[in-house]
Amino acid sequence: MRYTLCATALSALLLSTSAFAGQPDDVAWQITADLTTEIGARPAGSAAEAKARDWAVVRLKKLGFQNVRIEPFTVTGFVRGAETATLTTPYSHKLHITALGYSAPTPAGGLTAELVYFPSLDALKAAPAGSLKGKIAYIDHAMTRTQDGSAYGPYGNARRQGPGIAASKGAAGVVIRSIGTDMHRNPHTGATSWPDGTAAIPAGAVSLPDGELIARIAKTGKPMTIHLVLEGRAQPNMPSGNVVAELPGRDPSLPPVLVACHLDSWDLATGAFDDAAGCGIITAAALRAHTKAKPLRTIRVLWAGSEEIGVFGGAAYAKAHAGEPHALAMESDFGADRVWRVQFNLSAANKPMRDRIAAALAPLGIAAGGDKAGGGADVGAIIAAQKLPVIDLDQDGTRYFDLHHTPDDTLDKIDPVQLEQNVAAWAAVLEIVANEPGAITPAD
Amino acid sequence: MRYTLCATALSALLLSTSAFAGQPDDVAWQITADLTTEIGARPAGSAAEAKARDWAVVRLKKLGFQNVRIEPFTVTGFVRGAETATLTTPYSHKLHITALGYSAPTPAGGLTAELVYFPSLDALKAAPAGSLKGKIAYIDHAMTRTQDGSAYGPYGNARRQGPGIAASKGAAGVVIRSIGTDMHRNPHTGATSWPDGTAAIPAGAVSLPDGELIARIAKTGKPMTIHLVLEGRAQPNMPSGNVVAELPGRDPSLPPVLVACHLDSWDLATGAFDDAAGCGIITAAALRAHTKAKPLRTIRVLWAGSEEIGVFGGAAYAKAHAGEPHALAMESDFGADRVWRVQFNLSAANKPMRDRIAAALAPLGIAAGGDKAGGGADVGAIIAAQKLPVIDLDQDGTRYFDLHHTPDDTLDKIDPVQLEQNVAAWAAVLEIVANEPGAITPAD
Repeated sequence: MRYTLCATALSALLLSTSAFAGQPDDVAWQITADLTTEIGARPAGSAAEAKARDWAVVRLKKLGFQNVRIEPFTVTGFVRGAETATLTTPYSHKLHITALGYSAPTPAGGLTAELVYFPSLDALKAAPAGSLKGKIAYIDHAMTRTQDGSAYGPYGNARRQGPGIAASKGAAGVVIRSIGTDMHRNPHTGATSWPDGTAAIPAGAVSLPDGELIARIAKTGKPMTIHLVLEGRAQPNMPSGNVVAELPGRDPSLPPVLVACHLDSWDLATGAFDDAAGCGIITAAALRAHTKAKPLRTIRVLWAGSEEIGVFGGAAYAKAHAGEPHALAMESDFGADRVWRVQFNLSAANKPMRDRIAAALAPLGIAAGGDKAGGGADVGAIIAAQKLPVIDLDQDGTRYFDLHHTPDDTLDKIDPVQLEQNVAAWAAVLEIVANEPGAITPAD
Repeated sequence: MRYTLCATALSALLLSTSAFAGQPDDVAWQITADLTTEIGARPAGSAAEAKARDWAVVRLKKLGFQNVRIEPFTVTGFVRGAETATLTTPYSHKLHITALGYSAPTPAGGLTAELVYFPSLDALKAAPAGSLKGKIAYIDHAMTRTQDGSAYGPYGNARRQGPGIAASKGAAGVVIRSIGTDMHRNPHTGATSWPDGTAAIPAGAVSLPDGELIARIAKTGKPMTIHLVLEGRAQPNMPSGNVVAELPGRDPSLPPVLVACHLDSWDLATGAFDDAAGCGIITAAALRAHTKAKPLRTIRVLWAGSEEIGVFGGAAYAKAHAGEPHALAMESDFGADRVWRVQFNLSAANKPMRDRIAAALAPLGIAAGGDKAGGGADVGAIIAAQKLPVIDLDQDGTRYFDLHHTPDDTLDKIDPVQLEQNVAAWAAVLEIVANEPGAITPAD
């Protein structure tokens, strides 16, 4: 709430005066605001995502980027349909549900079955084979807030693996407690997957308050029945694409620095946090790194497509650019809250550059925190293929999973003050990295 | 969020140990938890409200109340139907909308029209007669948080009066920014009304983030078109009723102390804050005031029906009990957060009692704040009819309008520590008032 009020007031200030503390620069804000307002939701493979690519090309050219192009590919997307859930036994409650990506549709008229409560993914794993035949599994979990977002790994498996495990035990459907840390009636979507040989079943996530209700009723021992309507379904061969653009450096013979975000969003909201802001941050920072002088190396921005349903854009980029060397890769895809830590994957030979980066970030409240830099989803494939060095600017994820993949991921959640700190941090790193004349190499 | 986690942890503690700081007493929590879990949403006139009355009779008898009875009446209710809204021009956005109570249904296939933006109710009032013919009016507002909830008066008029004003100027429909202070995709419902001679039109409220989006687009000056489907409609002659119960005092000749809450809720959630908790608070406090010794006066609890759509229960109570004297009236209907202020409407002759109440409440962090006690919606009619003295225990409303009339009004929002402070405050007041042997009279 505080962020919201702050965002509204400060964005007004920002837009009216352009006199932001430190450097006046509303590129990041305007990309985030305009993409979420003029395009809105832009799910992988949709017409809206295609519109967003065209919009991106126009905006990047207008901002002075060169070699701006769309690199197309196709994906199997997920097209949402009607989705409702009603608990009918032992008490009647309308639940707030959303289908998970790659859920199978329920049969005509919906699916009514016993809801079998599992307090955790491990409890579901322990259920005997065949024991869920004709039933709907419910998977609870206890995810809490973490600044580094690390809880998403283990608890997120309830969404990633849970439905497939339930299906393999004969379940007719599966419902999970949303993978989130808020307590609002906004369910969190996200993709699930099915093991080879296991047919997809209807799979949905209820909001956290609905999850609390189900857990309370489960504790009474009374049997539960649920009626599910989840009409969304996978759709193959949908058009998607990456948008790639460059700010050329002084020495075109040197490999470029690759900075990424993703352009697609889930369909339930306008994807401000995930990941319009990331595109705003990397793009504004690339421009700002050119403010004083043109850097030595080219900075290439990748606004990836179809990240949310399988990181198709990252795979397509790695394939299309397999033959080109890259200097280093970075990604911004964790909201727009303050960067609190920098991590590196750089060789000992690059220690002087690393020290200069750490020194440049320290005044922004960013501590050098370790050597576990991994990049991000959209640069993962190219990093793995080319064993690229990486720098991570870790954003504060304390409230990230309140918003993640929910209808609540809207522009009002962006705090312009924190957004600006992100741009400043990214610009500081890019100015150093893009002016590094020597080889940049990873630790491993 | 903090409240939620706290609620979960503390309720577990409370339920497992019954050793609450101060007095062990989980009556308020259990009424709130069980009513919202076993009955859930209980809109005025519905079958669920009827179930809630039966549930209330069983619970109140079990708790030792006497003369427990249902006092029936009928109401014109509001039955919700499908509700969707899509902004189609200049950008495409699915909006989160809910119909206001007493909205007219949209025609078959929905209503598509220009959306005319008014920054405030005053701006709508200034629109020329007939200028909205065939259009849909949008009413914005700038409600912010107030501890005493006072912003709800003026800003709430956008919902109470706005639709009628738009209709009188020829509008085909009306959409308002939800009357709320949160920033979640959960619209706030609530009743509206139509001036005599003005036919009802479709009327809905969009969530606050959707309102921010509309305001942003309005500022560009681009015309907006919206497609509305709001299928809810008013339904006359629905059965409702009050539940009345007593804890008899030692002297049946003395007028009883009347304490009220309302049993009905809006249909979008389980009505934990509004007003299951109020019923929990007054009921637990009445019982606690009997802990040491039976008070002199009878304490009568009123769990009123059909408050949300026109305070029908309060009117029915005043009519049914017109011939009976009452000592004093109080109501709890503003959530379950901490009481911070007590206000009185007591004569100078009752100053000694008032001073004792103020002294009893001071250790609970409750300051004697004034003489503007008004009671509450459900006791309003009987107070006016009999010129009753009143005591208000003002709850902290800072987050009340985040939750008010939204899908988010669920049990997890109740903080047991603050709920207990409410019960303690109410019990302290009731112990003094119900043992007052002399006349209790209002200031006016």
